[in-house]
Amino acid sequence: MRIILDGMGGDNAPASVVEGAVLASKKIEHIIAIIGQEELINAELAKYKFDSDKIEVIDAREVISNDDAPVRAVRSKKDSSIVKGINLVKNGEGDIFISAGSTGALLAGGLFILGRIQGIDRPALASVYPILGKKPSLLVDAGANAECKPNNLLEFGVMGSIYMEKVIGRENPRVGLVNLGAEAAKGTTLTKAAYDLLEQSHLNFVGNVEAREVPKGACDVIVADGFTGNVILKLTEGLAWNILQLIKKKFTEGTKAKLGAALLIDKINDLKKNFDYSEYGGAPILGVKGPIVKMHGSSSANAVMNTILKGIPYVEGNVVDTIQNSVLEIEEITLSEHE
Amino acid sequence: MRIILDGMGGDNAPASVVEGAVLASKKIEHIIAIIGQEELINAELAKYKFDSDKIEVIDAREVISNDDAPVRAVRSKKDSSIVKGINLVKNGEGDIFISAGSTGALLAGGLFILGRIQGIDRPALASVYPILGKKPSLLVDAGANAECKPNNLLEFGVMGSIYMEKVIGRENPRVGLVNLGAEAAKGTTLTKAAYDLLEQSHLNFVGNVEAREVPKGACDVIVADGFTGNVILKLTEGLAWNILQLIKKKFTEGTKAKLGAALLIDKINDLKKNFDYSEYGGAPILGVKGPIVKMHGSSSANAVMNTILKGIPYVEGNVVDTIQNSVLEIEEITLSEHE
Repeated sequence: MRIILDGMGGDNAPASVVEGAVLASKKIEHIIAIIGQEELINAELAKYKFDSDKIEVIDAREVISNDDAPVRAVRSKKDSSIVKGINLVKNGEGDIFISAGSTGALLAGGLFILGRIQGIDRPALASVYPILGKKPSLLVDAGANAECKPNNLLEFGVMGSIYMEKVIGRENPRVGLVNLGAEAAKGTTLTKAAYDLLEQSHLNFVGNVEAREVPKGACDVIVADGFTGNVILKLTEGLAWNILQLIKKKFTEGTKAKLGAALLIDKINDLKKNFDYSEYGGAPILGVKGPIVKMHGSSSANAVMNTILKGIPYVEGNVVDTIQNSVLEIEEITLSEHE
Repeated sequence: MRIILDGMGGDNAPASVVEGAVLASKKIEHIIAIIGQEELINAELAKYKFDSDKIEVIDAREVISNDDAPVRAVRSKKDSSIVKGINLVKNGEGDIFISAGSTGALLAGGLFILGRIQGIDRPALASVYPILGKKPSLLVDAGANAECKPNNLLEFGVMGSIYMEKVIGRENPRVGLVNLGAEAAKGTTLTKAAYDLLEQSHLNFVGNVEAREVPKGACDVIVADGFTGNVILKLTEGLAWNILQLIKKKFTEGTKAKLGAALLIDKINDLKKNFDYSEYGGAPILGVKGPIVKMHGSSSANAVMNTILKGIPYVEGNVVDTIQNSVLEIEEITLSEHE
């Protein structure tokens, strides 16, 4: 397997990316090819001992930043790490592309270079969602499609369920639809129609899930339109950060509190770890004809390493083919709705 | 002022409602009229000492439950506490109606009995949103309107801003629109059009607010469609509850942790208090021709008392009239969009 890693994407590139690649290469036998401006990547690599049979550098001169208009950037910057990296996956010279770069450019690259899996109307970003004290859930769509149709939500459920099973290793994952209430009749025109489609599928559909139940792990695959999914993901991040900040502030007010906090330091660190996205790997773009994984822009070396490690079952589990094979069911259900 | 309090609504009715009324009546000079099955309410009242000039009981034989279809219940149960109570406000025999009963029935009652303020297309539920370590924000719409048009979001901003200023006492409140990113061009067809309308208004519009920034207090009035608002409110509740549960669990594992927790008990209680909705009063239904406030179904006596106390500036601030007077601006902005 040849894993293509974007050396130029993210706030800490190429330093964290290169360090993460070195860490990962000590744990796996696959080849990691870091793509980007080679002199920068080589300068970082020079800081570490590593097996030169397992880490390669591929030169790409251009960089797509978060400020670039995604579609235009993908069309014009042919020698960027993102465009060149995704092309390697397309041509079979790479098995997966991993990047902490612009989400928009990765989506555009997935759509224009790899193309949609036939029968998938809207590829989606799937993000691991931390559940305190339990195994994480998977949120689809985490923000790729702000406006959705009912069949898109069915696609998200199908693709998310496959990824959850093949990559995260959860059998028969429970698929839930984010909605205003648990009753089937609740919600918007969109969620009501999506409910009907999901219920007809072979998925382990557990029905509507109220947002209150999402952080408690009410379902393994959280299905939502991209606007709602984005709100769920970002609100969780913001609120968790805020609570941890307040704990830090309160627990250092006064000698008594400081002493108490010192006794609880392990527990507080455990708590923080629950929200540490770096533990879970990145967010796959599901529905395009090849594995692309988006990492958080501020990914640490540890996060990069974990994303690389999670990329292996993504490739070996044949997730893309399995989605392709599941499309027939999606089409049968959505067509029968129009009869 | 005569405050009409629903004796039958909520999980702890009439016990908590009556206790809350007694607590509030010790702090204010206004009359509190508790409406519901009088023998039940009188039995609860008999447990307390109170000033009988300040607490009245009004008999209403029927009860609308959360299982009743709201519109049908409001049309058929004329002798229910909700229908009779809202009618008292309509007829000028009451100044405000406060209930922990069915949100749907309160909305239907507001719409059919009091009617919409002329020029307001969609009344909304406004909920106080806790901001850790800071003053709370106000979320509009918290779930009354799952599907919205751009002018509805403008209305939510205008009404929320007035309530924030008159009742919660925050001058020139910052109004923010929940969206995928901070840039004006971000979001859905709905949020983009709403952005344009809000920007033309006299409001202190601070632009788009990402969900990540909401819990940090990025704006005083959080504008969202009712589906998104409901997700924000419930996710916050669920996540906060979950974090507090985990803290409780972790901080009682082992002797060392227990000792630490004992030293921090005041701080932990402070933290809990930040999420205690009972401190903030209930959720007003804005946009109908009279004050109606929905309390949490599981409201404690303390929550009931606080909602009654917050009801006074709601009435005295002439919020309903002020909204009425602001409608002209809403109409001018939305009409100019169609020219």
